[in-house]
This record gives sequence, structure tokens and C-alpha cells, in this order.
Amino acid sequence: MRNIKLIIEYDGTRYQGWQRLGDSDKTIQGKLEKIVSQLTGETIELIGSGRTDAGTHARGQVANFKTNCNKSLEEMHHFFLTYLPKDIVVTSIDEVPERFHARYNAVSKQYSYYVRHAELPSAFDRNYHFYVAEPLDWEAMTEACLRLTGAHDFLGFSALKKSKKSTVRTIESIEMEKEEAMIRFVFRGDGFLYKMVRIMMGTILAVGKGEMTVNQIDDIFQAKIRQAAGETVPAQGLFLDGVFYEKN
Amino acid sequence: MRNIKLIIEYDGTRYQGWQRLGDSDKTIQGKLEKIVSQLTGETIELIGSGRTDAGTHARGQVANFKTNCNKSLEEMHHFFLTYLPKDIVVTSIDEVPERFHARYNAVSKQYSYYVRHAELPSAFDRNYHFYVAEPLDWEAMTEACLRLTGAHDFLGFSALKKSKKSTVRTIESIEMEKEEAMIRFVFRGDGFLYKMVRIMMGTILAVGKGEMTVNQIDDIFQAKIRQAAGETVPAQGLFLDGVFYEKN
Repeated sequence: MRNIKLIIEYDGTRYQGWQRLGDSDKTIQGKLEKIVSQLTGETIELIGSGRTDAGTHARGQVANFKTNCNKSLEEMHHFFLTYLPKDIVVTSIDEVPERFHARYNAVSKQYSYYVRHAELPSAFDRNYHFYVAEPLDWEAMTEACLRLTGAHDFLGFSALKKSKKSTVRTIESIEMEKEEAMIRFVFRGDGFLYKMVRIMMGTILAVGKGEMTVNQIDDIFQAKIRQAAGETVPAQGLFLDGVFYEKN
Repeated sequence: MRNIKLIIEYDGTRYQGWQRLGDSDKTIQGKLEKIVSQLTGETIELIGSGRTDAGTHARGQVANFKTNCNKSLEEMHHFFLTYLPKDIVVTSIDEVPERFHARYNAVSKQYSYYVRHAELPSAFDRNYHFYVAEPLDWEAMTEACLRLTGAHDFLGFSALKKSKKSTVRTIESIEMEKEEAMIRFVFRGDGFLYKMVRIMMGTILAVGKGEMTVNQIDDIFQAKIRQAAGETVPAQGLFLDGVFYEKN
């Protein structure tokens, strides 16, 4: 069987997230599986690198599927560009070894979260950022990013009740970039628990606003209690930038 | 009476354009007049610098209204930020001399049109640009921009059938900037006829694609026939950047 790897860009605004729910047309996975099944004439199950929440976007989601279809990659790509809705774009298509698995083989991921920090909200791009009016302490946020970096048990920074599996993850880096009114927070790590980026982001902002101290981050790592962390910021500021399959 | 000048930013996606149609809630002017009337307790007519089409955006539309309301500018601004829909933002509010008229006193305007020029469309920002896949000849487009610059009868570049008023306008400059896949065309002039920016833009792109020659632009100025010019590009790529009331 052929194993096809897709890189997918999507605007999550209209969708209930990545993961297929029943036969709903309202999920990215559901939409893609429908089109891939039409393309191949087979019932296709698409394996994504992981879920994204309702309203969250992706620049580089990765998925794969197995098929006996013998169409060329160009034909397949053209079919996707023609039949997918305009807010889902397959940006790359490749044939990969049969053992490749988009979820199991992922070694790290990068997410970006966009915060508009200005006196006034913007009429534009409201589905692509979160607006913050309060003063933010850049140095305190830098320190918060550093405290969150490294290998920790992130259970307190997730929406998981509890977990039988390990909730230890390694955050390689959290970087902040400011361009005019927009702050971009770039999170890179070997894995992220449910809602973890959005809760880390809420915590960094809470530190920036002076509502929390940097030391409270260490307390949350120890206590592992989600209520101690910052709010879960809205999904629409979040982008899955890319999924990496070999250490760079 | 007090004369209040507003600078307004809006995302035109959800609206039928600037100009009020009956008592429709679907126009920017209609929405604003409703809120201004609630604020003042008077029936307010808002004077805009000019219309924008359905789907067209503004970063700096200017409007004014006369009122006997004695609320402070801060109170007014707060009211607008609270009660206007999130895709209409009053960015500035000022009290101006009674003779100021947002339309009659405008001496020039700036519009930007955004073209995504790349191999693939983008899943994002689809309401803020027009996607072009074909090769574009940058030098030919530069020359087309120069030919359109200056004082000309732009009747052939407008959607007006004919006009009793002068259709001569002066385009001060048309500049092209490219940043990654996005080309921004910046039009500055003393006035623009109905759909004139979008038809000029369609003509520049037709020259860029090699479908028209630069010399045909002079022919259209002479013949004044709209059919000879390029297509009317979609409204969603167009932004009214600002309106100027004194020569800079």
C-alpha cells in the first residue's frame, strides 16, 4: 500500500476542531477524509499529528493515509485544491515509507499564539488574535517563559483531569516577538497536553499583568492543580505552525 | 452646534458597503448612525468622506456629525467602543469647526489593494486579499502604474455610465510593495470615481499577465469606454487607508 503524507494549512474559524465527530462536516479531519475518500474510492482514515481545538488554526498540520489508489501526487494535489473548501489548503503532498505515522513519529511541534497589545482593539483579523488592553511587563513575561521551559510535569497546565500516561513534557523554547501592536509567542516542545499552550499563554499573560508571580509557576508544577494556573486564552489566537519528525 | 469628526476602521466583510440603504443594519453608515443617535438622543445624519463598496474595508474612513449633545469626547468614544459591533472601531474622535465637512473638504485619499501572488492560495485572510496564480511582469506593472498616474479623464476606468460632473481626477501616485507572497498597491489621488480603484487594479494586473499592453491604457483614456479596461477585481482586497484634508 502507498502511504501519503500531507501538510495542511487551515483557518479553524468555521470548524469544531481537527478531530472527526461522527460524520460531521464541521471538523477538519472529517472534511479531509471525505475528499480523500472521493479521490481514492476507498474509505480512508486520516491520521493527524494531533488534535487542534475549535477555532484553532494550522499552518503546518501533518497527516497521513494509506491507499491502493494509483493516481499521481500531482493529480491528488489538484483534486484537493479543487474540492476542499477554501479555508483548508493542502500545501504539500509526498509519498513516504509505509511505517511513517503522523502521530507516533512526531518528535516536536511548534505553536504560535498572537496577542494584540494596544490601546484599541482592531476591526481586522479578529479570528487570528487575542486582544489585551492592560499593561504588560515584558521582563516578567520573559522570565515566565523561561520558567515554563524545560522538562516538567505539565498536568497543572492542562485541561486533563488526570492521566494514566505521563504528563511530563519538554518545552524547548518559548520566544516572544513584537511587531507593532502584535506580540507573537512561539512555543516549541516535544508534545503538548490538552489545552496546554492556551493555559501556559494565560499564565504568561497573568504574570505580565502582575496578577501572578513568576514563582507561582513553580508552585503549579509542584501542586499539579490546574486551578492555580492562568485562564485558558481563546482558541482563535493559536496556530499550529509545524510538526517535526527528526531532531534538527 | 458641535461638529464631531470621527476616524473609523472597519472590516467590510459583513456589510453591504458604507452607504445607508433604508433603515438597514447591513451598512456601516447605518450601524454608526444608529449608535450615534442612541448616544445623543437626536436623529443624526453622518457625513462620510465617500462610499465604500460591499466587502471593502477601511483603516481610516472619516465622517462627521452635528449635535447639541454635551457629552465629553471621552464619553462618546467609550460609548462607541462599547456598543458598536467588533468589526467597526472608532479610532479617533475630535471636535472640529462647524464648517468642516467630511466629503466636501477632502482633498485626497489613499487606498491599498492587496494581491496574494503565489503558487498556492492561502487558507487565511481570504477576506483581505485577492489571489493571483499567474506570472506577473513587475516592470510592465510599474509602467502601467506610471501611465495611470497624473490628471486624466477616468470615465473609462469607472463603473459610471456617464456623468454630468467632471470625471477628471488626478492620481498622485500608485506604488507597489512586495512582502513575501503579498503585493500591496497603494493608490493616492484627489478623488476616485465609482469602482475606479478596482478597475485600475484589474487593468494593472491584466498588463502584468500580458493580457493588455501599457499603450492600451492611453487608448482607454481617449476612448473613455469601460469595456476596454481590465476586470473589476473583488472588493475584499481593497482598503481605504485614509482621507486627507490639507495638502501635505
